[in-house]
Amino acid sequence: MSEAELRAWAPDGVPEIHAGDDLPAIVVDAVGALESGDVVVVSSKVVSKAEGRQVVAEDREQAITAETVRVVATREQPGGGVTRIVENRLGIVGAAAGVDASNVEPGTVLLLPEDPDASAARLRTALIAATGAAVGVIVTDTLGRPWRRGQTDIAIGAAGIALVDDLRGQPDTSGRPMSVAVVAVADEIASLADLVKGKAENRPIAVVRGVGRYVIDADGPGARSVVRTGDEDMFRLGSAEAYADGYSDGYAEGSKESADTAEDEIDGGAW
Amino acid sequence: MSEAELRAWAPDGVPEIHAGDDLPAIVVDAVGALESGDVVVVSSKVVSKAEGRQVVAEDREQAITAETVRVVATREQPGGGVTRIVENRLGIVGAAAGVDASNVEPGTVLLLPEDPDASAARLRTALIAATGAAVGVIVTDTLGRPWRRGQTDIAIGAAGIALVDDLRGQPDTSGRPMSVAVVAVADEIASLADLVKGKAENRPIAVVRGVGRYVIDADGPGARSVVRTGDEDMFRLGSAEAYADGYSDGYAEGSKESADTAEDEIDGGAW
Repeated sequence: MSEAELRAWAPDGVPEIHAGDDLPAIVVDAVGALESGDVVVVSSKVVSKAEGRQVVAEDREQAITAETVRVVATREQPGGGVTRIVENRLGIVGAAAGVDASNVEPGTVLLLPEDPDASAARLRTALIAATGAAVGVIVTDTLGRPWRRGQTDIAIGAAGIALVDDLRGQPDTSGRPMSVAVVAVADEIASLADLVKGKAENRPIAVVRGVGRYVIDADGPGARSVVRTGDEDMFRLGSAEAYADGYSDGYAEGSKESADTAEDEIDGGAW
Repeated sequence: MSEAELRAWAPDGVPEIHAGDDLPAIVVDAVGALESGDVVVVSSKVVSKAEGRQVVAEDREQAITAETVRVVATREQPGGGVTRIVENRLGIVGAAAGVDASNVEPGTVLLLPEDPDASAARLRTALIAATGAAVGVIVTDTLGRPWRRGQTDIAIGAAGIALVDDLRGQPDTSGRPMSVAVVAVADEIASLADLVKGKAENRPIAVVRGVGRYVIDADGPGARSVVRTGDEDMFRLGSAEAYADGYSDGYAEGSKESADTAEDEIDGGAW
């Protein structure tokens, strides 16, 4: 297949997944024959189910709190309730910390896999052993974006696949360095797989053929390497939260300096 | 083609585009025969070139300023220069306001199309007339994300295609409402097309087959409808900018209240 062509499909007939199921065997069974360079994309939902990440929680909010490393922004919803944008255990910034309350048993919620990169690596090992093909594996979740409606799927776990295609320093067609320079390859593959897997259907697994130039020989750096928080993060806090922090600090400083000045005035008056 | 399968390809042999070129004719020629339900994805770069949006600008910064509606965040780069995250004319929040300095003639930069939704509509009309197929059209640009490394392609113009698939209120497989509810379909299609079009190559046009359930009978609401700024925007400003605003307001208020108190004290002393 040329670089200018790709195919993706999501096999039917994947059984409902339960805690303790042998997911690698189920995935091998579902995808059938593979070619080297294929990328197998698996929804984190089924990875979590197989890993027993379904927890009893009448209160979804409690589970979100437990999965949260850092609150980025909160906002009251018009209909009641609060939207929380948080950084979760995996470094991913989004609503609800990846806690999933749909397509699960009533009275339970589903947490993200403990270590999705490790889950992807286990799936990769099983797929290579079963098919003989050098394939990559991506574990996906669905994530909102701050300034655009709707969610897209992203890679939260990866093995055997480059996460990004770093073109920095490469010349464009007229010989100048390219300004758009780091292609988020794994996230783009996750998004395309979403279009064939769907949300409500029982098609949690997709095969993508035609992106083999991004398949690598080792497990690789994993999806965690794509996280950009910390010093590089220009949106560490929501605007309202950052404003409130600044207001509080500014108020304290303003009061203090003004009090110092007033004291000078009072002292001056005593002369 | 079933919903669980898709294909995408980017035809070779698209000529270099110049101002005044008949882009619809060039796209029709490049894609060949189409089927109803196909989506044709075109990089905004070639739309801009055909529309003469290449402007002389030794100073890219100047062009960015002109395209900026609102500065969201700025940050000095370690190597010099300033990264500006801005909202551009189209409501899109990103670096450099969509001003492109790669793959263009030296001494010039390329602005985004004046109205990418209108550009998409013109392409759609031409493609339907030429092929007889009911197709959708997406015009793409490449955009960074705040908390993840790398850029993905998004839809900045659209005609004949649903921008999102709103599943809110629909039951999941166990009958509960779905928590992840609005799929950013057009952005996911834009991202997948990026994987076959590439960046430096002369393949700015892709055809996506297998997403026909999102193709609609009219031009539709356009990509502008996906923009989420204004009241809904929890990241209206960068954290540093919002903090600075808050600090300034807090300082003024703290100084004032402290001065009022001091005045009371001075007045009290005069008794």
